[in-house]
Amino acid sequence: MGRSPLWTAIRDRLSEEIADGHYGPGDKLPTELQLAERFGVNRHTVRRALANLAEAGIVHARRGAGVFVRHRPTPYPIGRRVRFHQNLMAAGRIPDKRILHLETRAAGREEAEALGLTDGDEVHIYEGLSLADGAPIALFRSVFPAALFPDMLRALQETQSVTAAFKAHGLADYTRARTEITAKTAQPTLAAHLQLPAGAAILRTISVNVDADGRPVEYGRTWFAGDRVALTMGEDG
Amino acid sequence: MGRSPLWTAIRDRLSEEIADGHYGPGDKLPTELQLAERFGVNRHTVRRALANLAEAGIVHARRGAGVFVRHRPTPYPIGRRVRFHQNLMAAGRIPDKRILHLETRAAGREEAEALGLTDGDEVHIYEGLSLADGAPIALFRSVFPAALFPDMLRALQETQSVTAAFKAHGLADYTRARTEITAKTAQPTLAAHLQLPAGAAILRTISVNVDADGRPVEYGRTWFAGDRVALTMGEDG
Repeated sequence: MGRSPLWTAIRDRLSEEIADGHYGPGDKLPTELQLAERFGVNRHTVRRALANLAEAGIVHARRGAGVFVRHRPTPYPIGRRVRFHQNLMAAGRIPDKRILHLETRAAGREEAEALGLTDGDEVHIYEGLSLADGAPIALFRSVFPAALFPDMLRALQETQSVTAAFKAHGLADYTRARTEITAKTAQPTLAAHLQLPAGAAILRTISVNVDADGRPVEYGRTWFAGDRVALTMGEDG
Repeated sequence: MGRSPLWTAIRDRLSEEIADGHYGPGDKLPTELQLAERFGVNRHTVRRALANLAEAGIVHARRGAGVFVRHRPTPYPIGRRVRFHQNLMAAGRIPDKRILHLETRAAGREEAEALGLTDGDEVHIYEGLSLADGAPIALFRSVFPAALFPDMLRALQETQSVTAAFKAHGLADYTRARTEITAKTAQPTLAAHLQLPAGAAILRTISVNVDADGRPVEYGRTWFAGDRVALTMGEDG
């Protein structure tokens, strides 16, 4: 009987410590150097153990930040009221947004159709990243009718909150009229934004939010990292 | 200026004919041999044109059956009443199911929890393929409490309909209590069942159906081909 390689023993030990809750979901593991010292091995051996844990979906490496115990996917309710900030807080995650692009331009055909606009009407575009506990979980592109919300881009830049930007325009509430969900594999640019390997699974939603009169106020496309988010519906409808 | 290769001309012509509606979504294209005769080229050239159309997502080859114009994704409503047969008919597709596996065994931990059972309680397992117009769109695994539906497997074998099998046990109606949706990439076995390349995007749902008293009657996992189905919600709630 051959001895099993050293790295498997290290992998098994770390795996046990994670299962025991010694390292919990979202926790950062010690550095490669620290682990190498602890186990009395070289960094190559530690790296192999960590790579194997990553393949098994137990940990994930965040570029420049270290190796973290994987969260269970963030549950993300898709009901009548979809609010990023509230959804994340309810899941025990710290929400954050990063603006990638703000622009005002003529609506495309699909955008005009979804928002009930006519060709040539202007829309505001808000593109950004949604983060949970500092890790990107989604890239989004929201489109707003410029005539209804003239000052939207400035309000978004100041608050990074769609809800707050709507409020600044006198729109106190809005609801989700429809959502369509498909699965895609990540193209290289999207993968880079979401810190995923190219070809990773993506949950793409297309949605329309409306005001109390049923008038469309937001047309959105969101690309969620497939293994970091679980869209949920039910109970609250 | 060099002449563009022959296969690109054939690709462009076929692409135009599809755009014009000469071949509609779901239509079978002529065979390689027929196309080779029509264009006066060899089959290798035709094959290259078809492969390029497939890469562009315009057609898809179905093993042993030929090359078909791709459907737009089948819209599949996830509301309070999710019915495979009705959903497909409403989308203008012909629904069909293929049974892969029927079994009665003790519930696993997750199954027992979802169905409100205790350890050791028996469940019926119904695994199969859902098809639209003859093409697989999903692999499903449904789990039913055996005590409530003793004759479920025979009823499913006869009707291939969960709704009909419930009716045979006196359950006239059931509703969707919750659905959870994530994206995955297809492992080889799943890919083969769905006639997808390994690594293709999969939309995975986990759902619970309940009777009028809120008692769980079905715990289901479904793996949809990500590019063939768009889950939709809204309007009807």
